[in-house]
Amino acid sequence: MNNEDVIEKLIEQFRTLPGVGYKTAQRYAFSIIEGKEERAKRFSQTILEAKEKIGFCQVCGNFTDREICPICRNRNRKIICVVKEPKDVLAMEKVKSYQGVYHVLFGTISPLEHRGPNDIKIKELLARVQEDNVEEVIMATNPDVEGDATAMYIAKILSPLGVKVTRLAQGVSMGSDLEYADEVTLSRALEGRRELN
Amino acid sequence: MNNEDVIEKLIEQFRTLPGVGYKTAQRYAFSIIEGKEERAKRFSQTILEAKEKIGFCQVCGNFTDREICPICRNRNRKIICVVKEPKDVLAMEKVKSYQGVYHVLFGTISPLEHRGPNDIKIKELLARVQEDNVEEVIMATNPDVEGDATAMYIAKILSPLGVKVTRLAQGVSMGSDLEYADEVTLSRALEGRRELN
Repeated sequence: MNNEDVIEKLIEQFRTLPGVGYKTAQRYAFSIIEGKEERAKRFSQTILEAKEKIGFCQVCGNFTDREICPICRNRNRKIICVVKEPKDVLAMEKVKSYQGVYHVLFGTISPLEHRGPNDIKIKELLARVQEDNVEEVIMATNPDVEGDATAMYIAKILSPLGVKVTRLAQGVSMGSDLEYADEVTLSRALEGRRELN
Repeated sequence: MNNEDVIEKLIEQFRTLPGVGYKTAQRYAFSIIEGKEERAKRFSQTILEAKEKIGFCQVCGNFTDREICPICRNRNRKIICVVKEPKDVLAMEKVKSYQGVYHVLFGTISPLEHRGPNDIKIKELLARVQEDNVEEVIMATNPDVEGDATAMYIAKILSPLGVKVTRLAQGVSMGSDLEYADEVTLSRALEGRRELN
C-alpha cells in the first residue's frame, strides 16, 4: 500500500462523520498526520474507549456507562420528558429546574423517510407509563412538522391511560428579534399568549 | 470516571481538529457513540496507522511512507515548485503537465505571527538548489501578502546563485465573474496581461 492510500483511508474515515465533505475530511486527516504521535494515539484510544464504555440506558435510552443511567436511578419517575435523541437529554438537563426522567425515541415519525410509529421507541414509552404510574408526559420533540406529528400521535396513544400529556411551549425565542421571526413561530406565539399581571 | 467524562473526553479530542467548535465536536462524538462498534474500531485504527506510516520526505517535505517520496525519486530535479504545505503538493499534482519536483516550506514568513525566514525550510531549499544544479524555482506560495512576501524574499536569496525564479501567474480565476473580482486581483490581472495570438 502506498502513502496516498493510507491518507485516503483516513480521509474516508473522517468523511463518515456527519456533515463532513471531502475537503474538510482532508483537512482533518492532514492535521492528524502533521500533529504529534501522542495526539494521534490519544485520539485513537479515546474513540475506542468511548465506544466501549458508553451504551444506552435500558430504561430511557440515554447514553450511559451502566445498565441504568444516573437520572433513571435517582429521579422522580412520575414525570417523563420525551425527546428525539440522546443529545436532547443533554440540552434539557441544562434546565436545572427539571427533576423528572427522560425517554429517548431515537427518531420521529416521518412518512417521507418511511419511519412509522413502530420504528421508534413508542412501545417502550407505553410500557413505562403503565408500569411506573406516570403522571405527566412532556413531549419535547423538536418544534417542526415531524416533531409535532410525533407529539400528537403519542398524545393520542396515551389518552386512554389517563396520563397528562403536555408539549413544550412554542413561541418567539429569548433574545430574538420579532422582525426576523417567521410567521409560523409568530402565529404559535400568538396562540399561546398569556395574560400578564 | 462517569459516562459524561468519557463523552467529554471524546468531544475534546474532536475539538483538536482544525475549525471544529464544541457543537460540531459533540455531533461527531455522538455519531461515534451511536454508530457500530466496528466503525469505531476501524476509525481508531486508521488514525494510528496513518500516523505511524506517513512521515515527511527527507528531500522535499511532502507526505510519504518512505524516506524519499516517489516524486523526488522519479522526476526531473532541475525544476522545483515551492509550496507552503504538503497539501499544496496534492493541489499542484492535479496539473498533470508539471513534471518537476517540490519543496515544502512548512509555513510562510509572517512577522505578525513571529515567523521569520529561519522558521521555515528556506535553508534546505538553498542547499537543494546548489546541490542539484537547479535551473528553475517556481514560487507557488499562496497569492496573499505572506505568500507574496515569502516569494520575494526567496527570489532575493536565490538571485546570487543564478537560478531562474518564477511566480505563479496571478489574475482572474477561471469561471469567475469580473463583476465580483476584487480590485487587487483585477490590478494583478491587468499588470500580467498577455498579447493574444
